[in-house]
Amino acid sequence: MSNFLNNSYKTLESYVPGEQPTDMKYIKLNTNEFPYEPSPYVIEKINEDETKKLNLYPDPKSTYLKETIAKRYGFDAKNVFVSNGSDETLSFYFMAFCENGVVFPDITYGFYEVYANLYNLDYKKIPLKDDFSIDVSDYIGINKNIIIANPNAPTGMVLSIDDIEKIVSSNKNNLVAIDEAYVDFGAESALGLVNKYDNLIVIQTFSKSRALAGGRLGFAIANEGIIADFEKIKYSTNPYNINRLTQIAGISAIKDDTYYMDLCKEVAKTREFTKNELTKLGFTLTDSYANFVFASHKNFDGEKLYLNLKSNGILVRHFKGERIKDYLRITIGKMEDMKVLIKTLKNIIGE
Amino acid sequence: MSNFLNNSYKTLESYVPGEQPTDMKYIKLNTNEFPYEPSPYVIEKINEDETKKLNLYPDPKSTYLKETIAKRYGFDAKNVFVSNGSDETLSFYFMAFCENGVVFPDITYGFYEVYANLYNLDYKKIPLKDDFSIDVSDYIGINKNIIIANPNAPTGMVLSIDDIEKIVSSNKNNLVAIDEAYVDFGAESALGLVNKYDNLIVIQTFSKSRALAGGRLGFAIANEGIIADFEKIKYSTNPYNINRLTQIAGISAIKDDTYYMDLCKEVAKTREFTKNELTKLGFTLTDSYANFVFASHKNFDGEKLYLNLKSNGILVRHFKGERIKDYLRITIGKMEDMKVLIKTLKNIIGE
Repeated sequence: MSNFLNNSYKTLESYVPGEQPTDMKYIKLNTNEFPYEPSPYVIEKINEDETKKLNLYPDPKSTYLKETIAKRYGFDAKNVFVSNGSDETLSFYFMAFCENGVVFPDITYGFYEVYANLYNLDYKKIPLKDDFSIDVSDYIGINKNIIIANPNAPTGMVLSIDDIEKIVSSNKNNLVAIDEAYVDFGAESALGLVNKYDNLIVIQTFSKSRALAGGRLGFAIANEGIIADFEKIKYSTNPYNINRLTQIAGISAIKDDTYYMDLCKEVAKTREFTKNELTKLGFTLTDSYANFVFASHKNFDGEKLYLNLKSNGILVRHFKGERIKDYLRITIGKMEDMKVLIKTLKNIIGE
Repeated sequence: MSNFLNNSYKTLESYVPGEQPTDMKYIKLNTNEFPYEPSPYVIEKINEDETKKLNLYPDPKSTYLKETIAKRYGFDAKNVFVSNGSDETLSFYFMAFCENGVVFPDITYGFYEVYANLYNLDYKKIPLKDDFSIDVSDYIGINKNIIIANPNAPTGMVLSIDDIEKIVSSNKNNLVAIDEAYVDFGAESALGLVNKYDNLIVIQTFSKSRALAGGRLGFAIANEGIIADFEKIKYSTNPYNINRLTQIAGISAIKDDTYYMDLCKEVAKTREFTKNELTKLGFTLTDSYANFVFASHKNFDGEKLYLNLKSNGILVRHFKGERIKDYLRITIGKMEDMKVLIKTLKNIIGE
């Protein structure tokens, strides 16, 4: 730290992304990446003709990208905001709208609390129930902005659309953001409610189900006024936020929708296989609809199990939070990777 | 605008990037892009093997990219911060360090004032002299953070390193940021002062001299503590801020340094040609060392001239600020483009 940093940031604790060790080759099940390559169509479209144009600025309006996303989900381009990964949209949500406070579950995407602290917001973490489910009644008429990941992370558990509608309709003077990073692996999207409620923002990402974590692309869908507000913040921080090749990749991925949606079903199948095998090994699991499972074993300390897997060449994610320290979040990889995981766990557990 | 936007942003005026009309094909001399393609080595490195890995997150530390930039400029990787275009670095500068105020010239990159307003900072615009030069004495011991573009925009005029050192050494309790977006076209960099002064930040971009406006890559070089502060803000907003392909493009561009530095000399030659021709046509020009010229004609209104050029298929940039409204900022393109510009202006002026 320098002596020049603003006082307000001196004690700020940043987000810690999943580790990316380079000391050996790992089976990487720790950052919820899609286990399959981008579609051949995407790879074809990022070609020499396009890289030769990199001396030219990208379209700051991302016009064609927005139109393509809008069409896919049945909206107008004016309802779409695109960002450098969905983290940028999340950051803008906390920055632009939450001066009167924001609430979110105590166990969820860890970045929400970082944003709340970064922007010096009044925030409250609402405890999940003992079974890690959200108590919808906690959010009814709460009179604060809300952000909920659905499926939630790192549990993978889902809220029904009916429950989300209850929350949105009972908080009409505040915004409700639904972070659907993992929605394509089996949950239902709240996008169907956007035209009905002016106070709903649905946030999605290309990093998971669209195999573009390396490209950085996220988006929000909401009513036109909210999107205009997001744009205002973008044009006041970084107007050219989406580079040329990522715009092309995003457009092409949406055009090749079936490729991705079919593979999402594969991931869901592999998840169910993994859940079954882990249950047989004595693990307790949440009912995840995401591309990861969340599992603990009564005989094994979470951190030790994580370290043991790492020494066996398998990376999973372990969080130190009190309520979840005995759990591991395990990304669903390809079937062959999950079989190695199960075999390794059998050895560790000594079945 | 929605009803949900924070009060503090309701009157915020965003930055307006150069126009990108699609109604016809223009000779585009309005956004200071490099007129040449990225090097063949860069184009070769953004290949199918790499696009196939886009399902995986980029290295959030940008380790190899930082090391490559550091080596090129004689620093350690700990002295380098990389961002999604230099606008992101500029945004973080205003956000992270300027709670006690910031000063900059009245005529400079228009985004500085947007950032100052966005972050609700106490700021002061210091008038340039009548000839658009910076009066160094205005900044000696001013006891506020400072940001100066060198070469300045949209004038292209430069401060000497001696003058910059006077400013830096007389403000040791405050930061001085030198925005060197255009330095490679003929000015001297302040990088040589970074190891001597803990309060100096040098900011550069790959958008101009590195032909990567479409890739989005900027960087800052400063002492380790300041870089750690930038990282803290990055990890609290958007840890994966640089996508995979842009990291590769940046690394490859630095490795192919000669290609770019040779072409920068070509741009400088074309600039001098353009200056001469415009002078012959009766234009008044600043002494620009950037990849643009800044020119006015006593017989022609700036806006009318801009519109006339546009109707003739040539885009230049016109700013409405009172002191510069009769000037045009004209990017230096390829020689053939500048010849078309001169010919068109001859017709307009009726020589």
